[in-house]
Order: sequence, then C-alpha cells, then structure tokens
Amino acid sequence: MSERLVVIGGDAGGMAAAANARRRRRTDLEIVALEMGRWTSYSACGIPYVIGGEVFSLDDLVARSPQEFRDNLSIDVRTEHEVTAIDLGARTVEVRNHGHDRTYRLGFDVLHIATGGRPRRPDIPGIRSPHVYGVQTMADAARLVDRVKTDTVKRVAVIGGGYIGLELAEAFLKRQAQVTVVERGPEVMATLDPDVGAMVTDALRREGVTVLCGESVVGVEEGAITTSERTVPADIVVLGLGVEPNSTLAADAGVSTGVRGAIVVDRRQRTSAEGVWAAGDCCESFNLVTGKQVHVALGTVANKQGRVAGINIGGGYATFPGVVGTAITRVCALEIGRTGLTEKEATAAGFGYVVAKIESTTTAGYIPGAGPITVKLLAERGSGRLLGGQVFGTEGSAKRIDVLATAITAGMTAEDLVELDLSYAPPFSPVWDPVQAAARKALGLLVAAGH
Amino acid sequence: MSERLVVIGGDAGGMAAAANARRRRRTDLEIVALEMGRWTSYSACGIPYVIGGEVFSLDDLVARSPQEFRDNLSIDVRTEHEVTAIDLGARTVEVRNHGHDRTYRLGFDVLHIATGGRPRRPDIPGIRSPHVYGVQTMADAARLVDRVKTDTVKRVAVIGGGYIGLELAEAFLKRQAQVTVVERGPEVMATLDPDVGAMVTDALRREGVTVLCGESVVGVEEGAITTSERTVPADIVVLGLGVEPNSTLAADAGVSTGVRGAIVVDRRQRTSAEGVWAAGDCCESFNLVTGKQVHVALGTVANKQGRVAGINIGGGYATFPGVVGTAITRVCALEIGRTGLTEKEATAAGFGYVVAKIESTTTAGYIPGAGPITVKLLAERGSGRLLGGQVFGTEGSAKRIDVLATAITAGMTAEDLVELDLSYAPPFSPVWDPVQAAARKALGLLVAAGH
Repeated sequence: MSERLVVIGGDAGGMAAAANARRRRRTDLEIVALEMGRWTSYSACGIPYVIGGEVFSLDDLVARSPQEFRDNLSIDVRTEHEVTAIDLGARTVEVRNHGHDRTYRLGFDVLHIATGGRPRRPDIPGIRSPHVYGVQTMADAARLVDRVKTDTVKRVAVIGGGYIGLELAEAFLKRQAQVTVVERGPEVMATLDPDVGAMVTDALRREGVTVLCGESVVGVEEGAITTSERTVPADIVVLGLGVEPNSTLAADAGVSTGVRGAIVVDRRQRTSAEGVWAAGDCCESFNLVTGKQVHVALGTVANKQGRVAGINIGGGYATFPGVVGTAITRVCALEIGRTGLTEKEATAAGFGYVVAKIESTTTAGYIPGAGPITVKLLAERGSGRLLGGQVFGTEGSAKRIDVLATAITAGMTAEDLVELDLSYAPPFSPVWDPVQAAARKALGLLVAAGH
Repeated sequence: MSERLVVIGGDAGGMAAAANARRRRRTDLEIVALEMGRWTSYSACGIPYVIGGEVFSLDDLVARSPQEFRDNLSIDVRTEHEVTAIDLGARTVEVRNHGHDRTYRLGFDVLHIATGGRPRRPDIPGIRSPHVYGVQTMADAARLVDRVKTDTVKRVAVIGGGYIGLELAEAFLKRQAQVTVVERGPEVMATLDPDVGAMVTDALRREGVTVLCGESVVGVEEGAITTSERTVPADIVVLGLGVEPNSTLAADAGVSTGVRGAIVVDRRQRTSAEGVWAAGDCCESFNLVTGKQVHVALGTVANKQGRVAGINIGGGYATFPGVVGTAITRVCALEIGRTGLTEKEATAAGFGYVVAKIESTTTAGYIPGAGPITVKLLAERGSGRLLGGQVFGTEGSAKRIDVLATAITAGMTAEDLVELDLSYAPPFSPVWDPVQAAARKALGLLVAAGH
C-alpha cells in the first residue's frame, strides 16, 4: 500500500529529502511538496550576487525547477501553496493555495518539515516599511531586484554586519551606491574574534563603506534610519542580521523546539513527533566541537540534513553527525573564513587554549600576485587538539579553512596539522602552507605552556 | 662540553635541521653546514618560474642566505664546500673547499645528511652535452637562466612529462619557444591515472605544446634529439624525469639505503648509523596509505623531515609520521592535484576499491568565472575508507586536494567526507564542494557494491 510523504518547503532542506526518498522508494511512496513561493531548490546564498549584478537573474539561482521535480522524480510539487497548520493527531496539513485562493486539507503518513529561516528584524518603529528588505527568500529577493533594476539606489543602509550584511554591502558598492553598515557589536562579523573582525571592518572602510560599529538602529523612516548616535540617509534599508528558524508551524503543532526556537532533531533528522522529520534552517544541528546543539542556517547543512532525512524516510539508514561551524565569505577582493570555535566560544565551552596568529602569503612570496593572509588558530592546552581557526586575506585564502574544518572534525592536534602532507607548488602556497605555519606557532606555544 | 654537528647540504633538509637544533641548543652545540653550491635554503621548486620570467631572479628564491644563518643562528655555513667522503669510524668528513681549492678533514659528533636529489638522466648518447640542462640545483638553474637571458631559445625539448617537465614546458611557452615534451608513458604525468593524465596531455596540446607520448629519447645531438620515432629539433634539452636520491656519499660510508637507493630513516629521521641523521630528497619516507617506504622528493617533505631531525638532534622528541603522496602543479591556466593512491598503486597495494569521477564547477555554476573541475576518488570496498584522489581543472581546483589529503590521513571514509562541514559561498564553491560530490558518488557505488 502506498504511503504519502508531505514535504513542507521547496528549497534545499525539503527537496533534497524528497529526491533522496524518491530514489529509494520508486513505486510505493507518493510525494507532495508544498512551497509557499514560486521557486524550488534555489540558492538563496546567491541572491547578493544577483543584486550586485554579477549574476543576471534570480532564475539563474534555481538548481531544479518544480517541473523538473515533477517530470524526473514524480514529485507533486505545488508552488504558491502555503501550509498554515499541521494537525499531528489527524495527520493532516492545512494548505492555502494562493494561486486559486482556496484552502484544503491534505493527509500525510510521513511529514517532512523544511520551513527554513526568516530574517531577523529588530523590533523598532518602521522596520516593516516597504523600503526595508530581507533577502532570505526568492520572493524577498525579487522585490529588491525589481527595485534596483528599475531605480538608481543611491544610499543604502545595511542593518547588521554579518555574512549577509557584508555580501549586500559589496553588492551595492558594485551598483555605485553609498553604503552604510550599522553593527551593534564592536566590529563587523561577530562570528569572528574581534581582532579578526577589526581587519574586516578596516578593509570595508578602505573599500568606501561607512561602517558604524557599536551603534544600534532605533528607527526606520522614509529616506533614513536613525541609530543610537545619528541619522543616516538611506533610500533603502537591508536586513543583514542573519536568520532565525521559521519553526512556528511546527511548534504550534506540538513539535519540540530547542536552541533559538529551532526544531529539535536527532542525528537521523527525526523530530520529537512520530513520523515527522525536519531539515535545514528551521532545525537544530549538533556542534561536534562543543557537543552542544546549535542553530546554523546554511545551504550546505540544509542539503546534508535533507539528504539524510530523505535516505531515512526512504527506508535507508543515514545520520548527520553535525557541524564544526564553518563559513566563508568574500568582501570585494578579500576573503574571510572561520571554523570551529572563536576565543569567546572556546571560553564559554570551558576549554583552556593557546592562540596562534600568523601572517603569511597565499603563494610563495616571490610569485607575482602573492597576497597577504592571516591565519588564527586555537588549540586546546594539554591535548593540543585543534579547536578553531579563522583566515583573512586575498584571493586563495578562504578555502584553506576546509583543511582546518577537516582536521578539527578528525580530532587532530596542532602537531598532526604541522605534519600533514598538504600540497605545495610555488603558485599555490609557501612551502609551509599558512595553516601549517599557524599550527607550528601553536605547537610552540603549547610546548612553552608545558602543553 | 660542546659537541659539533656537521650538516651536509645547505637546502631545506639540511638548514631546517640546523635551525631547529640551534633553537634547542643555544650554547653547547657547534654547527657547521657544508654546502657544495653558493646558495642556502632556496626554493628549487621556484626555478621554472624564474626561467619563465615570472620571477625576476634566482636570488628571489632564497629564503635565508648563508650570512643570515651565521648572524642570526650562529651556524658556520661554508658554501662551495663539497663533502667528498664520510668516515664513520673516525667520525670525520673529507671536505673539498672549491673556493680555495684545498681539501681538509672535519670531525663531527653528530652528522646530518641532506644531500638532496639529482635529476634522472637516461643513459643515452649525448645526455651530458652542455645544452642538456637539469633544474634541481641553483647551479644547474643559473646556467639555464644565463642561457635564456642571453640567447633567444626557439626550440626546446623536454625529456619527461612529470611535474618538473610540465612546469618547464609552461616556462618556455611563456618565452615564446616551440616546446616538445617527450614522454615514454601513454600520457604525461605518470603519477596520475591515465584517464586524468590524458586530460593534461590534451590541455598541453591545446596550449601549443607538442606532446609525444609513448616515445623514448634515444640520443641527444647538437640542435636536436632523436626519439624512438623521429628527430625533434631542439636548441636546448631539459631534463624533466624527476630526481633520484643523492645518497652515494652515505651509501659509500656504510649507511643503509633502501627504496630507489634512498637513505633508510626511522620516524625520528635516524639513519642506520649511530649519531647520523638524514632528511630531504636523499632519504626515504613512509607512505601512510600503503604502509610502505617510498622515495618522495618534495620541498615540503624536506622541510618537515629537517625540522624533525633538528628537534631530535637538539634533544627534543619529534617524529615525521609520513606522507600520503600529495602533489600539485599548474600548467598554464590549468591546475592538477593528486594525493593518496592511483588505481595502479591501489591495485599494487592489494586494495579492492570503487572509483568515482565527477565533473563540477569551481564556484557555484551561476557565478561568472565558474570553471570546470574534475574530481576522481578511490574508496576501499568494504570499509569505505578513502584511498586516493585526483583533481584537474581551472583556477581554484588544485588546492582542494588538501581536504582529501587531510581526510585520507585521518582515515576517513567516503561517508565521512560527504558529511564534512566544508565551507561554502557561491564565489568559492557549489553547495556540494566538488570533493564531496565525488564522495557522494563513491558512496553510491559502495552501497551498490554491498560496500
């Protein structure tokens, strides 16, 4: 007898699950995917590059269209269908078909929740004005892209100096706008240590961005925002405060939520409710370094969690072990990466550690185009175990964080990293890769500290 | 009482040891470093980029001069001093001072051998002609650099299509020369699988290099070389067959040699002789994947082994665990990387394995400048353990091999690699990094094969 899987949400966390479930259950599973917007499987992370004009159209961000899911995977994708309630007892969802303006109930045997995230909005006057834009969904983005394509935006205020905020700052610089970033913290990128964040703040200023650190936005008006310190003229305002889990639907139905309100899942992506799964920005992840639950809103994690949920729904066995907190971004010619724990996070988690910070070059120093790179590394006192790393530098810097992410996942020590057989040729690296130069310094500090 | 450490060889394997020993023994160790040539601590890997004109001068390749070692580390560096014999019984070396044309004996308490490698030369008529050049030492390179700077070299024949051969081919292309690479094997780069090697061969041909595979050089004449198939005009001939260990001095003194004649060392870099250490291209390494001794001639390995030997000589404790066989190079706009085992090597080592090969892009596909990348991955049947990887593609491809090198060193499986928290942002990577896309495919093959 055929079962029905209902998937709520048509982006990575939802459609990766649907596709993986389908590959394992070709005939005995009906799959209905309900998506509030008009797009499926799109790269929300690509939105800033459309706004900046580097990528032509939002359509370019779509990896697989609803029709492709229908044709190739027999998935009944229903766009502009918004789930408005989940009834776990009756095993139904209430669906609003915005296209035909009607509401219906749909039964499920298995439910997969991938409702994603929504941009954080400070609770201040004017924050819901039409000239305040989020960029977490294609619908949000479409509105902003329309605006920048039909109107010359001269002055932009970005609220929040996190990844999305800085990517948007870069995008509007490319559009020749005057950009102001307002960041409550002492430096932009609160996910970095302040000393590394300061390097990013300085770099932004050199690129011509006005960065106001230590200021909060207290109000949004037509043509301006007001911070705790001043009024900043702004034709449009962009939200760069990151996202919070969009878990209200699940929570209202009685599904357990945890960190920051994210849906609680186990390593197989099962929620607290029988036969109900979740993946992506709406749910928790496990941090492999601290051993604690965290909320991470990233396309990579959504894809991996969706894949795991889909395999399990399809009758296979897969687990998502967790994250180490890896992230990268580019701001103009500069690259920034981080993984594992910052000093603040390591302290909060109770680790004793040494900090090694080195300056090196992206290639052998004598190769034309060699650029500066800074690597910061945290290693645990006693064990020498790697806890976290941050990189900042010119082209070729950021992806080096992957070696650290892999080493941290493997539980390697600073000494293990020194001895790793990493690749070397003069156009790619100094003979000691910068991450290994940092590891050498960390090892010296560990030895000096009697480990 | 002060001991005397004599170091034979003033490049990475020697000077890294001398420097590390000095840092641990500031006062009770006399260090004499004997270098046959005029330079110390130079990047031989950088020589092709000087020949190509990308780097101005050979002096740019010197990390630390003899005078710096004297002034900063109290190391008695003697350049143009060639060791001609080692007497282990008398604990002396015989030294030829080429500057003053005299020979003397020098006693040692501890000896460190870092005599490096020498270019392989096929045993054919004319191979020692003055227009045949190696590029393993600065003296070799100086001769070749003089030639290309004073004379327009129109036609170049490169014997051997390995890393050095291809880097030289690129260098001479930059000098507008007609370049012919003669390679005995079916494709260039025998350290890759033939299917990946074929991609490199094709790329070279597109760049305008004449590549003659499956041909051996049988003779060198003035103005030409003769292969098994034809005569190729050549103003100069360059050796690109890689290096063999320069271990004659050690072997003649009774120090044990092993694989390809390389000096046998343990994990602390001790040779078979009491108080005699070795590091770099002259000695063996341990391959962590096969568990067998190998000979690897790389600046990274020489530096690491030298560091370990120096720490041990200085009274510390350090080990060099081994290599996984990582290497990268650039040929014009293309990047090539490898680590672990090729199919041939995996078969020879007795592994059963699956092979996954995927095509992806270096960045998100919609970002302008996204280029093609091919990743090939070998994973062991049964365990799923990663055995080897190869990458080939445009800018941003090669350094991805480091993730595989780290994962292989850590003993990770294809599934572990799929779940790794690697960094993602559209200008850097598709949402599944190409190495993870390959891991997903490998995992599928492992599952299909019942592991």
